[in-house]
Amino acid sequence: MIVDNLETPYYAVIFTKISSENTDGYREAAQRMEILAKQQKGFLGMESARSEIGVTVSYWQTLAAISAWKNNMEHAAVRELGREKWYKKYQLRICKVERAYGFEN
Amino acid sequence: MIVDNLETPYYAVIFTKISSENTDGYREAAQRMEILAKQQKGFLGMESARSEIGVTVSYWQTLAAISAWKNNMEHAAVRELGREKWYKKYQLRICKVERAYGFEN
Repeated sequence: MIVDNLETPYYAVIFTKISSENTDGYREAAQRMEILAKQQKGFLGMESARSEIGVTVSYWQTLAAISAWKNNMEHAAVRELGREKWYKKYQLRICKVERAYGFEN
Repeated sequence: MIVDNLETPYYAVIFTKISSENTDGYREAAQRMEILAKQQKGFLGMESARSEIGVTVSYWQTLAAISAWKNNMEHAAVRELGREKWYKKYQLRICKVERAYGFEN
């Protein structure tokens, strides 16, 4: 799903990853993290696609909301599992969304 | 491919889209745009994945580099075709990357 126009400025977390061969428990954990993220204060939306790499972008009202999500204990535990088991490589980028344009046919 | 650590700050263009049913000429145009983007001054890298939606993130040294790419005539012509034919819906977000973390197993 595409996240529609939001009022700028807001924040984006761009998470890109290459998975390892171990997918044990990954799907359930990813679904749980999506549910949990949506419950966080300041969460605005999430966009995700996966082919050769996975790209997930989540949107947040403030940097404080991103920090709180980072420090969520269940999230932190799953992140640690991800480093041990599911991810070969990732990059996480924290960005300020300065301008946005939408188009719809 | 994942774009590795770059020195912050830099800029990201997050392009998320839902395709229309008309894919005529799309693949060739997308490949050509990728080649052309890589030739632009200030281009730093690109990450892309596609499943239910398409998410493409390109990275740039400056906002001026993003503007120049936006105004590239061949790019503008293809963007117009995209609106007419290939895209049902899209969002384009211009962001300043403030912090970034990498992980590799």
